[in-house]
Amino acid sequence: MKNIGYYNGVTGPIESMQVPMNDRGCYFGDGVYDATCVVNQIPMHFDDHIDRIYRSAGLIDITIPMEKAEMKAVLQGLVDQVEAPVTMLYWQVTRGVGMRNHAFSGAETKPSLWAFVKPISMRDPYGAYKCITQEDRRFFFCNIKTIDLLPSVLASEAAARAGCDEAIFHRGDRVTECAHSNVHIIRDGVLHTAPCDDLILPGIARAHILEICREKGIPVIEEPFTVEEMMAADEVFFSSSSALTSRVCEIDGKPVGMRDEKTFALIRDTYQEKLVAECGKIR
Amino acid sequence: MKNIGYYNGVTGPIESMQVPMNDRGCYFGDGVYDATCVVNQIPMHFDDHIDRIYRSAGLIDITIPMEKAEMKAVLQGLVDQVEAPVTMLYWQVTRGVGMRNHAFSGAETKPSLWAFVKPISMRDPYGAYKCITQEDRRFFFCNIKTIDLLPSVLASEAAARAGCDEAIFHRGDRVTECAHSNVHIIRDGVLHTAPCDDLILPGIARAHILEICREKGIPVIEEPFTVEEMMAADEVFFSSSSALTSRVCEIDGKPVGMRDEKTFALIRDTYQEKLVAECGKIR
Repeated sequence: MKNIGYYNGVTGPIESMQVPMNDRGCYFGDGVYDATCVVNQIPMHFDDHIDRIYRSAGLIDITIPMEKAEMKAVLQGLVDQVEAPVTMLYWQVTRGVGMRNHAFSGAETKPSLWAFVKPISMRDPYGAYKCITQEDRRFFFCNIKTIDLLPSVLASEAAARAGCDEAIFHRGDRVTECAHSNVHIIRDGVLHTAPCDDLILPGIARAHILEICREKGIPVIEEPFTVEEMMAADEVFFSSSSALTSRVCEIDGKPVGMRDEKTFALIRDTYQEKLVAECGKIR
Repeated sequence: MKNIGYYNGVTGPIESMQVPMNDRGCYFGDGVYDATCVVNQIPMHFDDHIDRIYRSAGLIDITIPMEKAEMKAVLQGLVDQVEAPVTMLYWQVTRGVGMRNHAFSGAETKPSLWAFVKPISMRDPYGAYKCITQEDRRFFFCNIKTIDLLPSVLASEAAARAGCDEAIFHRGDRVTECAHSNVHIIRDGVLHTAPCDDLILPGIARAHILEICREKGIPVIEEPFTVEEMMAADEVFFSSSSALTSRVCEIDGKPVGMRDEKTFALIRDTYQEKLVAECGKIR
């Protein structure tokens, strides 16, 4: 199939999939999601993403009514039906279907599983990308991967209109993360990245990058850094399971980073090797 | 009909309405809504609510593809089909249908209009209600009536589990508003209410209450007040187009207010008169 959509056991082309209007995802953003790149029908870091959606759901008091192995099997079944070297697997769990009411206890809704798989192009790991900065006006649930994404939508749109690839959020001086990725800087051979609190999502690519740094002897400082420090850093890059390690050459129209290729390339190339080890070379 | 749902021109019982999975409301909370009580088929403060949804949409760069009069006519057409003395009219506008992508320019999605009408019971204006307080961890877009409502869902659920009617948010000491209403206090015959900034929704009932205070010579101070001031106030009440003026007798298990019935009753009774003048007595 060209692509595939899924909702509670029903499948079809994404464009023709229908869902109940009363799904609480539609009225409240009452749900969580996850997504990853799929190479050669193998979803990248699949177990990490499965673990995360269960954790996200638990943090907003949604009990997913299936075991992790069953969810994996359902999603793999979708992945296997889309023939393309690289696809995006997206899935979300909402609290379920019921007449609109903020409070949910008593209604005994059964959580809904939504998913789709569609072909994508892998981002060029050797590219250099442009960003804008945006004041971070999001809520304090950023550690949970919820579908309340309007601020990220607006920031991504602002980036697109500026001809850029990503928007970097900051709360006052402090850099938090991007509209759909984490952001890191390298200074004097040290990787600096924001600590995991309620201001950032604990990115799975981020965790793999920290592991690579440990393996390769690159020191890591998990402490807040400022916009000024980012602008003056030797390297700036953002990461996610689709962006992988995206090197930044320009922020708000000013050149940044690109001054410690050795350290950055060690991280990038090791990540690429991990990806090949896990999923094989892109066919 | 018992109730009615609507999506882009299609109607049916709410429970059987379907919408496209790719509506951006489903993935991103990319939309705005409004709602009001309907008495005798007359939506309360209808023009105010229509104006507000156009304003909310404009603030997130959605251009609603119909005139206000047309939207009103569509919604009135739905209201007229549900036979009940009091109903809830709910409607939302999402950015439209398209393959999931944060940025939206270029895709040229056409905004979707969703709506439903269902019977409700009017809240007893002579009741006394219980509340809990909750730290306000929401985003800084609270002046826009978006469908990114997860924090309000969680707070409402916490209130329901505590056997209470509403959750009152505070950012640190400062009281902002409730999970789905504005909150006001009366002290020494003066109404105190939070100012309109990005921390609260400019409530339509709130605006009518301020107008009533002006008409009746009750002084109003639109400045932030604290949790401590609220707990010590002569009266506490919350307002919305469904809560109207709901008097609060208890917060976090402690008795509050209920000490200036004269001022509160003047506001409540004048509001009830306005409602009857606009919609007639409930049949």
